[in-house]
Amino acid sequence: ADVKKIAVIAGDGIGPEVVAEAIKVMKKTEELFGLSFEFEHGLFGGIAIDEEGTPLPQATLDICQRADAVLLGAVGGPKWDNNSKELRPETGLLGIRKALGLFSNIRPANVFDCLKEASTLKPEVLEGTDLIVVRELTGGIYFGEKFRREGANGEEAVDTCVYNVAEVERIVRQAFEIAQKRSKRLASVDKANVLETSRLWREVVNRIAPEYPDVELEHVLVDNCAMQLLRRPSSFDVIVTENMFGDILSDEAAMLTGSIGMLSSASLGEGSFGLYEPVHGSAPDIAGQGISNPIATILSVALMYRLTFGYDEAAQAIEDAVKEVLDAGHRTGDIAVDKSKAIGTVAMGDLIVSAL
Amino acid sequence: ADVKKIAVIAGDGIGPEVVAEAIKVMKKTEELFGLSFEFEHGLFGGIAIDEEGTPLPQATLDICQRADAVLLGAVGGPKWDNNSKELRPETGLLGIRKALGLFSNIRPANVFDCLKEASTLKPEVLEGTDLIVVRELTGGIYFGEKFRREGANGEEAVDTCVYNVAEVERIVRQAFEIAQKRSKRLASVDKANVLETSRLWREVVNRIAPEYPDVELEHVLVDNCAMQLLRRPSSFDVIVTENMFGDILSDEAAMLTGSIGMLSSASLGEGSFGLYEPVHGSAPDIAGQGISNPIATILSVALMYRLTFGYDEAAQAIEDAVKEVLDAGHRTGDIAVDKSKAIGTVAMGDLIVSAL
Ligand SMILES: CC(C)[C@H](C(=O)O)[C@@H](O)C(=O)O
Ligand SMILES: CC(C)[C@H](C(=O)O)[C@@H](O)C(=O)O
Repeated sequence: ADVKKIAVIAGDGIGPEVVAEAIKVMKKTEELFGLSFEFEHGLFGGIAIDEEGTPLPQATLDICQRADAVLLGAVGGPKWDNNSKELRPETGLLGIRKALGLFSNIRPANVFDCLKEASTLKPEVLEGTDLIVVRELTGGIYFGEKFRREGANGEEAVDTCVYNVAEVERIVRQAFEIAQKRSKRLASVDKANVLETSRLWREVVNRIAPEYPDVELEHVLVDNCAMQLLRRPSSFDVIVTENMFGDILSDEAAMLTGSIGMLSSASLGEGSFGLYEPVHGSAPDIAGQGISNPIATILSVALMYRLTFGYDEAAQAIEDAVKEVLDAGHRTGDIAVDKSKAIGTVAMGDLIVSAL
Repeated sequence: ADVKKIAVIAGDGIGPEVVAEAIKVMKKTEELFGLSFEFEHGLFGGIAIDEEGTPLPQATLDICQRADAVLLGAVGGPKWDNNSKELRPETGLLGIRKALGLFSNIRPANVFDCLKEASTLKPEVLEGTDLIVVRELTGGIYFGEKFRREGANGEEAVDTCVYNVAEVERIVRQAFEIAQKRSKRLASVDKANVLETSRLWREVVNRIAPEYPDVELEHVLVDNCAMQLLRRPSSFDVIVTENMFGDILSDEAAMLTGSIGMLSSASLGEGSFGLYEPVHGSAPDIAGQGISNPIATILSVALMYRLTFGYDEAAQAIEDAVKEVLDAGHRTGDIAVDKSKAIGTVAMGDLIVSAL
């Protein structure tokens, strides 16, 4: 088979544990579906700061750049929280997004039946919730000029939010295309009543919309969207928005499903290359205890198979295996109702491998 | 008695209807508590655009500037949505905030017992939720330079987010002081892992914090806050944040209480001057039918009495009267379970006046 190169950057906290299980699953699918992967590991985040003095060493970037896809665990932890900007794990995250041109972050937020109860929303409100947030990832206020200066009233800080037409176009087109393959509803979120970047955003969306006549488009102001996600989550299908709004709304959307520990995400650029990672963080409080939940990372592999490699059958098999294991009642501590029956990270990975 | 001047800007949609009921309540408290008000009405928002060609006529600003407090109904509607920026109701809103120096927006988000069921959150999660969002209102990306330019990749739009130390200090101090009078917990929300303005914000908060040793301070990243509001709403007491984040989070917080149609807000500057308004909008779909709920506006009057005038007794009486009417089972259409028994705007106002 065609050998695919996977860059593995396990990162900090529970990152290495959950990534190990995901790789186990990938290896099993090599056997079952005749796939073939070559894994190359790189240091990233806090551990890279400790060992290499930078959160994103050039060697790691090289590994990613020659790979077909990247599997990321999680980065960060209290140890590095008070570091200066260049020595913080987040800086590595922003750096890798920019360096790899990953302009689009795709986060499905769906409800796992077996976890419905974990949501703080009423089950009847949550019913049918299955949405995707498409977040612009390499523009906006994250990457605009930032500085301090002396102003008329003392020291001031400045952040700049910039978007050009091309940046908006590519992410919006991608969102329309995703919507076309789903329920054909797109909510474009902006703050066009206040921001110039949002007015540009809305202009571009309106200009492109006629090319997708089968997709029903609504413009939602970001403050209203934060409300509507709570009031009518199941009415959303695809939500597309700029970087900062996407950061906030995708976390809100993930949390309302109650399944946040199970959600995966993809960051994509032009072409099929992508970086895949669980939505959850590095959970330093439980790292190293072997009790973390590997499912979000395993499902990130399924996302990789679909979006980067077109291995739809293997992706489906992984998703089915996860469902089977959950339906059989197996739970890691984070999702167990009866904590005393919780199983560990490796046991969960093994069960999913056997179910494949 | 000392005559207090009230600027009344009823605005659009249901604004005039709900404001009329609030004034009725104020007049009743004049009798009961020996208060004395002088009302001066001004055009504002869409109606001002129609009649004067600008959302914030100078005459209206003059009325506000010579008043002790402003009572605002609501502004906006589809009629003006596609106007150019200068001819939009929101532009008047931003203009009045800036012109009157209203740097702080205070939004209590509490749960009305009789409306608990209206929330999409589970009652046990909502239990005890009673928080206040203190939002910076005259700085940040709302008021920084905005423009279009030709960039290397075509047309681009720019928004600038600026905060100086003094702007952060005054709002943060106010939030600490509010927290001191409540449960003594303050959550300061920023995005210090990405934004320079947030790093300045956090520095100022940390520098001021020792002056309020009795207040327990936590820093929460904005994306995490959007999640925690859903996961543990009752754990928050006072939340302080910058303009854009406050716009999003205060709407999320309001919606999760299920009481959004009942919530009031205050916008304050230096001194006791303030602008008071319901959190809900102009509801053009039900305007003119006499069915809107005046309670949020009536409760805004109670907030005005407390925060601008120190009329605590009269404020309490209004709040008690509202509670009494609700406890007796009276409901406007928006909050009625049995819509056929719903009463109108004027009837609700009358009942509250009688209960006083
Ligand atoms: C860690 C942080 C810089 C990052 C972001 O804001 O993009 C994170 O919140 C995310 O959503 O991936
Ligand atoms: C109408 C709009 C400009 C305004 C804002 O964003 O401040 C509104 O959302 C609010 O919260 O008062």
